[in-house]
Amino acid sequence: MKKESSPKRVQSPELGENEGKYVELHGWVHDIRILGKLTFLIIGDPYGYYQAVLKGELAKKGSSIPRQSYVILRGNVVKSVSKINPYEVQVNYIEIVNEADTVLPLDPASKVQSELMTRINNRPLDLRDSEERKIFLMRADVLHIIRDFLTQNGFVEVDTPKIIATASEGGAELFKVDYFGKPAYLAQSPQLYKEELVLALGKVFEIAHYFRAEKSNTVKHLNEFTSVDIESAMMGKFDVMKILEELIKHIYSSLKAKGYQVNELKGNFPIYTYEQVCDSTGVNFGEDLSSEVLNEFGKDKEFYFIIDWPLSLKPFYTMPKGEKLSESFDLMYKGLELASGGQRIHKYDLLVERLKANNLNPESFAEHLKVYRWGMPVHSGWGLGFDRLMMVLTGRNNIREVVLYPRDSRHLAP
Amino acid sequence: MKKESSPKRVQSPELGENEGKYVELHGWVHDIRILGKLTFLIIGDPYGYYQAVLKGELAKKGSSIPRQSYVILRGNVVKSVSKINPYEVQVNYIEIVNEADTVLPLDPASKVQSELMTRINNRPLDLRDSEERKIFLMRADVLHIIRDFLTQNGFVEVDTPKIIATASEGGAELFKVDYFGKPAYLAQSPQLYKEELVLALGKVFEIAHYFRAEKSNTVKHLNEFTSVDIESAMMGKFDVMKILEELIKHIYSSLKAKGYQVNELKGNFPIYTYEQVCDSTGVNFGEDLSSEVLNEFGKDKEFYFIIDWPLSLKPFYTMPKGEKLSESFDLMYKGLELASGGQRIHKYDLLVERLKANNLNPESFAEHLKVYRWGMPVHSGWGLGFDRLMMVLTGRNNIREVVLYPRDSRHLAP
Repeated sequence: MKKESSPKRVQSPELGENEGKYVELHGWVHDIRILGKLTFLIIGDPYGYYQAVLKGELAKKGSSIPRQSYVILRGNVVKSVSKINPYEVQVNYIEIVNEADTVLPLDPASKVQSELMTRINNRPLDLRDSEERKIFLMRADVLHIIRDFLTQNGFVEVDTPKIIATASEGGAELFKVDYFGKPAYLAQSPQLYKEELVLALGKVFEIAHYFRAEKSNTVKHLNEFTSVDIESAMMGKFDVMKILEELIKHIYSSLKAKGYQVNELKGNFPIYTYEQVCDSTGVNFGEDLSSEVLNEFGKDKEFYFIIDWPLSLKPFYTMPKGEKLSESFDLMYKGLELASGGQRIHKYDLLVERLKANNLNPESFAEHLKVYRWGMPVHSGWGLGFDRLMMVLTGRNNIREVVLYPRDSRHLAP
Repeated sequence: MKKESSPKRVQSPELGENEGKYVELHGWVHDIRILGKLTFLIIGDPYGYYQAVLKGELAKKGSSIPRQSYVILRGNVVKSVSKINPYEVQVNYIEIVNEADTVLPLDPASKVQSELMTRINNRPLDLRDSEERKIFLMRADVLHIIRDFLTQNGFVEVDTPKIIATASEGGAELFKVDYFGKPAYLAQSPQLYKEELVLALGKVFEIAHYFRAEKSNTVKHLNEFTSVDIESAMMGKFDVMKILEELIKHIYSSLKAKGYQVNELKGNFPIYTYEQVCDSTGVNFGEDLSSEVLNEFGKDKEFYFIIDWPLSLKPFYTMPKGEKLSESFDLMYKGLELASGGQRIHKYDLLVERLKANNLNPESFAEHLKVYRWGMPVHSGWGLGFDRLMMVLTGRNNIREVVLYPRDSRHLAP
């Protein structure tokens, strides 16, 4: 690619350390200003913006480049009088790699944000706005922080199939796949696999896309979403709640250390029982807590847990607590459910009983049930809705803002 | 879970540092030996094995525990006379968490390995064999090494949809999904999305499961597989080949540093052109290189590249090199294709022309093509078959050995 005579290629943040040098840069034309015989190009690259100054014939050439076109520039780096960019490039060579259309679906240089749907339908262009790009840089950073934290805490990363033969959670709606003529489904969670794997691996985690075929279009649901799942042998509900709380706090402090604008979380996450929430909101025992109820209950709270849900509201694998309750919890942020977990059943007979109580056929779960005959340990775990966590971390109110190419019942493309 | 009176819980590798102390351990009964009035339990946990010594009533209780049952033990850690384990536990408390069946589908303690299909059908139990477990601990380590390497090299991790509306690679067979009554497919690769994202993010990578509906059952193909994909703006074929070669070498040296038994890779990976391979094996120009040809050509080689494939053998987005060749490469190990990549087309008109030349309808690719009107940079990338890399790293000959729950046309469960 690079000819031997090319000068050193640098990126926007490296201008300062190359003052006085002749360098090559590449990027897109973010904005153009013409002042007398000079053309000033504001060039964007994935790491920032800088100003390129063009004189004479080059000024003429530069002034007619369509915005967002991709260019290669060569020139000398000098101190700038601009307050925004302390350095600029005095260009003596410009090459247009690819010209952009003159009419674009959105303008990343505009201070007025386009409609969300326009932005999502043109996501790569939307990401040329550094504010939008920052969401996905943060997303990558948070995923890295989570993997490091869980690995350092002894969890082994696993990857389990996304094409499955049986519904893992029982009830919820599944996408159907034609698997060589056999009916199959897309996984809603790694629930059964991660439980099976604690048998020998002890502590496991998985981060992947999962699929739910629910047609409702809300600001907090997608049909394809990212989940962070853990499962651990010989832990109870409070043990895995502690790991989750420490993880969330670690994410905040790590992001702060990386220069992101997030608050530091202080104190322990409060714990409320389901029955306390019912008492405080007037909900009858056994009823699910609606968005309205949770928004009301959570309006003056940040992160908190709701524990000991009615057994009838939790999936079949949840460990009962007495007759009517379960060893379960949800992690909430204000009115938004972020994570859900608890202790699981580890005894074969009880698991069969709970499958039947949920009107599920134990024969459909034979491949899973057999593992409970091989010395299954006590175990607990949780699943964290990663896209929802990103909503909280970025302060965005629509889950589509934090997912590159969101999937809902109306959007299968781009 | 843990009662306040419980002693400190330790894992098998921590016995030495707890010599003389009263501790709690948990694990499965790997093997049982009875010597006079003593029962010796070999206990396994995810991190190793240790010996537990039971006397009197406990010896009697211990001698009848079915193998693979999960137990909690308490006792004193003492030096052992055993050559294998320098420490052992003198047990004064044993609790059976979950009893295993007395007849098991395979015996992880046996020195004779069960049939591969038996092991896969009973994977959690198979993983109680530390040799099998090691493959998946290595798999997790390699994924972590790859993410760290790419992140440190400026690549941003992205996650793109697995349910898609259009075939991304054109030809190959796709799994069909019913998406709310609309036809949809499972992604074969993140190809189009990763190309689009270099527009603003510059350098991206994704590690995820992908899906190919090919019915052939071979030792090197699965219908659901893990791929490591990168794409970078302003790089050519040789630039991304260099990143791939450095990554592979970094994986080997990192694994060696972690104590895994792998060779160090020396020297540069040799580069052969497709035409050189043809000349050496008697294949006519334009023909694909069969497994037989590649096995013959690669039999005395380790890692090497084959570059400049005929345009007709590569997907529509591949940058042409002259009339008949392409700016493409495959990374090979002996006769096995591990990765495939090259420079991509960045010009709208040429991309439309190549779609047509491949009998694909540009209208089906409208959502992708539009991005090429927004100043698309020159770009290159590759996709690395991660499961195949794990075959090479572990020396296993069947891809099913290195995937927890493999999916092929005959296996949709467990």
